[in-house]
Amino acid sequence: MRGKFISLEGGEGSGKTTAINFIQEWLESHDIPYLMTREPGGTPLAEEIRQLVLASRDEKVNDTTELLLVFAARAQHLAEKIQPALDKGIWVISDRFLDSSYVYQGKARGGDVSVIDQLSAWVVGDNKPDATLLLDISVQQGQQRVAQRKQQDRLDNESIAFHEKVREGFLERARVDSDRIKVIDASLTLNEVKAQIESQLMALNHAWAGEAE
Amino acid sequence: MRGKFISLEGGEGSGKTTAINFIQEWLESHDIPYLMTREPGGTPLAEEIRQLVLASRDEKVNDTTELLLVFAARAQHLAEKIQPALDKGIWVISDRFLDSSYVYQGKARGGDVSVIDQLSAWVVGDNKPDATLLLDISVQQGQQRVAQRKQQDRLDNESIAFHEKVREGFLERARVDSDRIKVIDASLTLNEVKAQIESQLMALNHAWAGEAE
Repeated sequence: MRGKFISLEGGEGSGKTTAINFIQEWLESHDIPYLMTREPGGTPLAEEIRQLVLASRDEKVNDTTELLLVFAARAQHLAEKIQPALDKGIWVISDRFLDSSYVYQGKARGGDVSVIDQLSAWVVGDNKPDATLLLDISVQQGQQRVAQRKQQDRLDNESIAFHEKVREGFLERARVDSDRIKVIDASLTLNEVKAQIESQLMALNHAWAGEAE
Repeated sequence: MRGKFISLEGGEGSGKTTAINFIQEWLESHDIPYLMTREPGGTPLAEEIRQLVLASRDEKVNDTTELLLVFAARAQHLAEKIQPALDKGIWVISDRFLDSSYVYQGKARGGDVSVIDQLSAWVVGDNKPDATLLLDISVQQGQQRVAQRKQQDRLDNESIAFHEKVREGFLERARVDSDRIKVIDASLTLNEVKAQIESQLMALNHAWAGEAE
């Protein structure tokens, strides 16, 4: 019985890390075998590609270069880590996946969506997540949370506009692919957020148990 | 006046390094500003990608990952090094370029040519070399030259078949794009090979001078 594949998406301050910790506890309490992973990255080579993408450098990074690097890492991650785990009946939880490429490289940076569509068709194909949990929060509230964490975070208009585009981008994706992408209202209290996530996990687990019969 | 862009292609033992040294001497003797570069690589980031591609590692490298890495490096190389040089009227000589992807990732490893075509359209577009010098030599003769260089090189059938595919792949490309790809018979004496290369350089230089008028 193939494992379930869940991705977590959301902007800064949306509480992705807390959500992942909660999912991990829930899977353990239900004795479900799982693997936590992240993008870009997830295998030694893919993590090396991640470092190339995220490193600060004097050289300007061409947008196409960045997009191809992200999908190169994703191809490796899927072939060498995600697929083999799912095939063994292990659930895979990925901190970010395909939707982040559409939102960050596409919507926020103005990348060509038809190029991302084509890369997605080659690299991901039918191997999209069974469910994507999108932690949605207003930019203002998200930034307040980030500011509490960091020393300080003076926001200029440009970064607010960027974060607004990211939020819009994720919500647009959720509207177009509402069967897969579940919007979690991350502005609520921790317990309310956990309850929303738990109901998605229960639905997946129910479907999974059904497949075994 | 835009510089001329030349790529060198050929299999093992075809004498690419000797050819590049000769081209460099020729350009210097004609006072033509030039830049020597190579693929994969050519910029600091692209060289880091090269290292990822060429490193030996325990992890199996997915074919799509390798192809996307090579094109990621190429996008960076074109945007940050090749185009700016050509725009300044500098000639660019690249040890390998696009055709190597078709031959090594496509023909020799069985990669999907339509995928390479699409990547080429995005990344290279109209920025193909003005001339590609393909150093062609039989696999047997090429391997003899390599064996002289290396300690020894016991060839099994698999590697011969691979090198045959590489040679065929380059010759097929030259047939389809004969205006750009010039086949240099690399089995001849050094002076004869140089004479063939020089006639191509003279033709390019003549066209270049004509553009100035």
